[in-house]
Amino acid sequence: MPHQKVQGFPEKVRIVEVGPRDGLQAWPDPVSTETKIELINRLINAGVPQLEVTSFVAPRAVPQMADAAEVMAAIDRGKGAELTALVPNARGAERAIAAGIDAMVFFLSASESHNQANVNSSRDLSLVAAAEIARLGEQAGIPVYGAIATAFGCPFEGNVPVADIVQIAKAYGDMGINKISLGDTTGMATPALVQERCRALAQQVPDADVALHFHNTRGVGLACAYAGLLEGITRYEASIAGIGGCPFAPGATGNICTEDLVYMLQESGIATGIDLENLIEVARWTENQLGRALPGQVMKAGPRLRLRDRQEVRSASGRA
Amino acid sequence: MPHQKVQGFPEKVRIVEVGPRDGLQAWPDPVSTETKIELINRLINAGVPQLEVTSFVAPRAVPQMADAAEVMAAIDRGKGAELTALVPNARGAERAIAAGIDAMVFFLSASESHNQANVNSSRDLSLVAAAEIARLGEQAGIPVYGAIATAFGCPFEGNVPVADIVQIAKAYGDMGINKISLGDTTGMATPALVQERCRALAQQVPDADVALHFHNTRGVGLACAYAGLLEGITRYEASIAGIGGCPFAPGATGNICTEDLVYMLQESGIATGIDLENLIEVARWTENQLGRALPGQVMKAGPRLRLRDRQEVRSASGRA
Repeated sequence: MPHQKVQGFPEKVRIVEVGPRDGLQAWPDPVSTETKIELINRLINAGVPQLEVTSFVAPRAVPQMADAAEVMAAIDRGKGAELTALVPNARGAERAIAAGIDAMVFFLSASESHNQANVNSSRDLSLVAAAEIARLGEQAGIPVYGAIATAFGCPFEGNVPVADIVQIAKAYGDMGINKISLGDTTGMATPALVQERCRALAQQVPDADVALHFHNTRGVGLACAYAGLLEGITRYEASIAGIGGCPFAPGATGNICTEDLVYMLQESGIATGIDLENLIEVARWTENQLGRALPGQVMKAGPRLRLRDRQEVRSASGRA
Repeated sequence: MPHQKVQGFPEKVRIVEVGPRDGLQAWPDPVSTETKIELINRLINAGVPQLEVTSFVAPRAVPQMADAAEVMAAIDRGKGAELTALVPNARGAERAIAAGIDAMVFFLSASESHNQANVNSSRDLSLVAAAEIARLGEQAGIPVYGAIATAFGCPFEGNVPVADIVQIAKAYGDMGINKISLGDTTGMATPALVQERCRALAQQVPDADVALHFHNTRGVGLACAYAGLLEGITRYEASIAGIGGCPFAPGATGNICTEDLVYMLQESGIATGIDLENLIEVARWTENQLGRALPGQVMKAGPRLRLRDRQEVRSASGRA
């Protein structure tokens, strides 16, 4: 009964863990290189098939990612998990290739003002950089994926036209970058926007292989994943225990939580290859290591069929 | 763009606010009668069309609901919001009717052991009590609704057969109780179970008018609502700011959060008659009054098109 299929959902989903990068890039406390490495190795051991493990950006801009090469060097490659990293420019791409990355993720924002604020560049110039990284990747035999940030809305401009997403996806495609992800950078995605954007890409950029990346800023992250599943999207980016955002500012929420997503998928009859019980242990370990309460729910409540003793909830008397 | 319809969703949804009852019944701090009354009146003022305002249970069993009649007496009835209350037995029904309730909600658990633990009665004896309350309601001209607790799983027994839900719904129907709600008492609902149970009821108990009541214990509350919307369910119970559960025990999460649900519905082009901005203010007021951090997300982040100044997120530099 628990693992019956939800009608309209795909058979299999690939989870892309982005906690070590998106979750930790702005973490307010120092996180040791050893902790990052152990986190990544624990995630791989739980069966996570793909991980964005770090970001080869300027250490001055993102100090938490200054140890990118050290992290890469110590990851257990035995299980064959695919390791990716963010690269903003050619310098980053060279460092990532030298570090032995499996694939590089380039990123630009769908909205001009966010791209300016984030990488101090126009979208057009960012696409020039993308082409350069695509060339470097081709030379090195390393695939390049294309992320589109603010794909569901921009904190400065508001709504982002779907035509802009299509245009960037086409530009990526012209460079041979077909694996793309739609990033909900500031948690503005809604099920309607997911439906609209996935359909537009399926129709207008049929070669694009789309992943979805949601933040749970407004509580609808898994509902957006639901919308994506019904559109046949089979790659989702998420963050263990829901790390990310800023724990001081409750509004700045992190990515959707990996183990909550895996729980929903598993209970919907979708195979992920991940051991949920093991993943929950990794989430609890992460919360313990980082020393702050994290948003993941399933790690607190446990899987749904962990039965309780009657005495434990006897105090529920008289309630519906 | 933000209010476009999600394909397959209904046009309108009726929100049933259950925070004053389900959210507060086990709240660890005393909540004054005045605070409850102001909370309810603020919710009504924001446009909430139906509220479960209290529970006419034995004050010894649920001390937080001892002021049920006082609360009822002070609610602003001018806007015509429908006021309901839980009634476990004939004594409760008599008190609820005397207090001027609009409709009474009887409840029993779908699983035998939970019903025993919760109301110290077999399911069969609870159905006898339901029939008695249905008679009292008919005499008084007050509708009776039927709640089915543990409808998606029992913390003692695990999975709950869908046949048991159908059987209870039929028994309710035989008493003239057609408005029923499926309660996810301990957060064990999944989209697959929602789909299965809604379809079984639509086929086997076609007169049943089903509402859904989820807890966000495992993070999938709004995803379960999504599943319900696709089944055409148009009544959802939720709790302002996500109050409920026990704030000391992070695993014991409350109901899905009313303003997060309304946000999702509004952004999906579904009319609720509720003013979201006003509702968010009520959620913030509630958090302030109760003096503990509450799970609601939209009240922290604001609606999605509240634009930000570029300086505010300038520190996002170099991130996707």
